[in-house]
Amino acid sequence: MNEQRNAGEIAIIGLGLIGASLGLALKAGGLTDTPIVGHDTSGKALGAAKKLGAVDRIADNAADAVKSAAIVILAVPIMNLRQSLGEIAPHLNEGAAVTDTASTKTEVMRWAAEALPATVDFVGGHPMAGKETPGAEQAEATLFRGRPYCLCPSLTASPGAIKAVSGLAAVVGANPVFMDAEEHDQYAAAISHMPLMTSTALFSLIRNSASWDDFGAVAGPAFKDMTRLASGDPALALGIWRTNREALIHWMDRMIGEIGRFREMLKDAQDEKLLEVFTQAQVQRDEFLLDPPVRMPEDTGVSVDKGKALMDMLIGAKLADNLRRAMPPEPGEKMTKAEAAEPRISMVDRVAEGVRKDLEKMEAEEAAKETRGDEL
Amino acid sequence: MNEQRNAGEIAIIGLGLIGASLGLALKAGGLTDTPIVGHDTSGKALGAAKKLGAVDRIADNAADAVKSAAIVILAVPIMNLRQSLGEIAPHLNEGAAVTDTASTKTEVMRWAAEALPATVDFVGGHPMAGKETPGAEQAEATLFRGRPYCLCPSLTASPGAIKAVSGLAAVVGANPVFMDAEEHDQYAAAISHMPLMTSTALFSLIRNSASWDDFGAVAGPAFKDMTRLASGDPALALGIWRTNREALIHWMDRMIGEIGRFREMLKDAQDEKLLEVFTQAQVQRDEFLLDPPVRMPEDTGVSVDKGKALMDMLIGAKLADNLRRAMPPEPGEKMTKAEAAEPRISMVDRVAEGVRKDLEKMEAEEAAKETRGDEL
Repeated sequence: MNEQRNAGEIAIIGLGLIGASLGLALKAGGLTDTPIVGHDTSGKALGAAKKLGAVDRIADNAADAVKSAAIVILAVPIMNLRQSLGEIAPHLNEGAAVTDTASTKTEVMRWAAEALPATVDFVGGHPMAGKETPGAEQAEATLFRGRPYCLCPSLTASPGAIKAVSGLAAVVGANPVFMDAEEHDQYAAAISHMPLMTSTALFSLIRNSASWDDFGAVAGPAFKDMTRLASGDPALALGIWRTNREALIHWMDRMIGEIGRFREMLKDAQDEKLLEVFTQAQVQRDEFLLDPPVRMPEDTGVSVDKGKALMDMLIGAKLADNLRRAMPPEPGEKMTKAEAAEPRISMVDRVAEGVRKDLEKMEAEEAAKETRGDEL
Repeated sequence: MNEQRNAGEIAIIGLGLIGASLGLALKAGGLTDTPIVGHDTSGKALGAAKKLGAVDRIADNAADAVKSAAIVILAVPIMNLRQSLGEIAPHLNEGAAVTDTASTKTEVMRWAAEALPATVDFVGGHPMAGKETPGAEQAEATLFRGRPYCLCPSLTASPGAIKAVSGLAAVVGANPVFMDAEEHDQYAAAISHMPLMTSTALFSLIRNSASWDDFGAVAGPAFKDMTRLASGDPALALGIWRTNREALIHWMDRMIGEIGRFREMLKDAQDEKLLEVFTQAQVQRDEFLLDPPVRMPEDTGVSVDKGKALMDMLIGAKLADNLRRAMPPEPGEKMTKAEAAEPRISMVDRVAEGVRKDLEKMEAEEAAKETRGDEL
């Protein structure tokens, strides 16, 4: 019984903004029964994560963190991810679901396939959330609320592992969106990485102008918002260049082309044509904010209901194990007395009971939060 | 006495987001003794502004609104500004201070010089504040708090009028920054108008891509923030193109060049060089947020103290009038009995008394507001 309980932990390796926020969001999402164990090479991050309540327990190293985990989240910088995969590989439980949070996925899926044993399942993840201020002390339980959470299951990932990781995404309040890694990287280049380059280029251009002292003195919210991403972690940008270079160059070329198109209309005094473009953009953006395109979770069998998602996640992670235990022993295999006496689906029942209790609380909390939700 | 009091009103023509927010901010800034009269051609805007308490009284037309005003604020769209100047010109009080809120200043200063009588003073204004949602119903008393407020006095503007308008900027919580109109338009092109074009180009590019449905489904805060300005009023953009075309084209060219520079480093795998650029941008932007360059109000004799600013504004607006009344009559000019009996600086005293009473209230309120101020 003790072993089974231990094997139901969630491990978070890397307690920066994303890792610590995931811990907080899992707790806020109602995950009260499952211990979250955390590890980070920085003592400061560990201290902040523990203090915030993002993790229940601290592990001294990555190997220790994962040894009792059913779900492992690698929230380390992408440049450290390959090494982390290698470090945890020998210590993972059979059937563990492993996921990451890196900004690109094609390389990551390759690294995971190389490093991880066949006994575990890798489901790449990328929560489309964050802010420019890094660090566990900046963590927020609501960071993922309403955000897309891209999931790229490996070809060999079990349905249980996929359910566990998509359940995790739903529990933290995000919308799981399945795609393959190459597709993800193309999308991310367009809507995340190229905007980051544009934001930094804008800041760099204005900041290094001879008139900066005057520009800076009159800069308003337009400039501040448009350059927000320039305050992000440069190491994150480096990880993106190294793993998504071609797609990023493609979208930078297209962006240069689009600004050039606007410039030509302006130069030729085609103000009415440009006004049409602006008016269309205004209408389309309002429409996007009110009614964004969705890849329906229904399509993928992932539940959008919070309580159901919590069950998906926990049950998903325990499914293989529970089913195996519930099956009659193979001929020649003998159950121990303790195993035979064990109420096999009690874990699931207990989770269900906890979920029922948490559900009302969650719904009330959700309603309260929605009234102040405005991410613009 | 009645006449003198009437001539101390503030008129706001155009009760959109900026006009109505100015009304609210003046009230919040402690302007309780001076009636604010408003006019807008839209009944909806009038209703919203009155309901919010942004104005004390509604005038049926612009002429009516300005006829008792010591300070007139034209917060109409730039494309309507020239017409508004013509409409109010014959009805302005002698010595009235007239200002505007338009995004560009060179053309505006020319229009004002053409339209306004020599008996009034024009001080062009541009509060570097706003949001993409227009309309009086979106007005906020705190919209200008901590923002630069560009002021371009006309060559003939009296010290009293300059003091009145800079006092107004300070009362609404902004930092008055003096510059000439051409200088303003260059700055605005770099830090406001080009970012607007860039934001709209980004949205337009991604929104009109074949993969939009997928892009939109995974778009996170980076894309939303970077395209926020695309939701702005297209008429505002049109006004900018029509009045600041050359400066805007110049800065769009420079922006295209800067993205191109980043692209080349990426293409040539000069990741370390690019990392240096990103690291420098991060450091410099943090520095900008913590300690932005300022054109010190001290340099211009404008007070940064709120209560003092309130007095500057009211006293500035009444100064000419009061001084004239305090002077002995010219030979041959006769004072009426009522004029001789009038306590000439009573208005100033009354304002000072009001300011003293409001000051404590303001300071407490200020302290409370600062704790939740985070404009990022």
